[in-house]
Amino acid sequence: MAAKSIIRSKQAAEAVDGTLTEVVCTVFNDYIFVVVTQYGKMGTLISVTPHSVGNEISKPTFSTKILMGKDEPLIHVYAKHLVTFVSEESGNKPVLLALALKEANVDSIKSIKQLIQSCRLW
Amino acid sequence: MAAKSIIRSKQAAEAVDGTLTEVVCTVFNDYIFVVVTQYGKMGTLISVTPHSVGNEISKPTFSTKILMGKDEPLIHVYAKHLVTFVSEESGNKPVLLALALKEANVDSIKSIKQLIQSCRLW
Repeated sequence: MAAKSIIRSKQAAEAVDGTLTEVVCTVFNDYIFVVVTQYGKMGTLISVTPHSVGNEISKPTFSTKILMGKDEPLIHVYAKHLVTFVSEESGNKPVLLALALKEANVDSIKSIKQLIQSCRLW
Repeated sequence: MAAKSIIRSKQAAEAVDGTLTEVVCTVFNDYIFVVVTQYGKMGTLISVTPHSVGNEISKPTFSTKILMGKDEPLIHVYAKHLVTFVSEESGNKPVLLALALKEANVDSIKSIKQLIQSCRLW
């Protein structure tokens, strides 16, 4: 018996600095899964988790954890830059990010963030 | 500049033992990502990795590792049952499985396996 889909997903592809960059966002009840890939690989898997702070006025802080792949300092920085807003906009859901970048700089991270925003389903 | 998508994904939903079960399979160059969810959650994240053995006649063995979520013995068993064939059919690619089951038995695992087979893109 076929049934109506409950998982929603949105996909976009664009050239960033001349490199085909693909984004897929999938919304689960407990997580948002964001794929950012520049060469078809799933790459590094990072969980980005918000932690509420005692002061209600403050925004939550975020911790990043590499679940699979190389644990490099820059990966944590990119992950926070790319998907912190996803968590904030979705009512502080944790985000699972699959990230495979050839190279990155401030401008390309900004462009990729816009690509993620174009896949907004939360 | 919009560009052609390189990530391929296939999705199916079916009632298994009366419970809406959803499967999403996404093919990456380095991994196959399989989602099996019964209540919209991403649930437990398990990597299922083939290890080739010295004897070429033998099939590879598989190791399972919980990357996120509860590490319970049955999860490893379900993961192997559900996605070992995906790895074998795709030329021994490792599989990342997101698994959220309400409850499971031999028959329901069999039905879910068929649902995964219906999303075959590898």
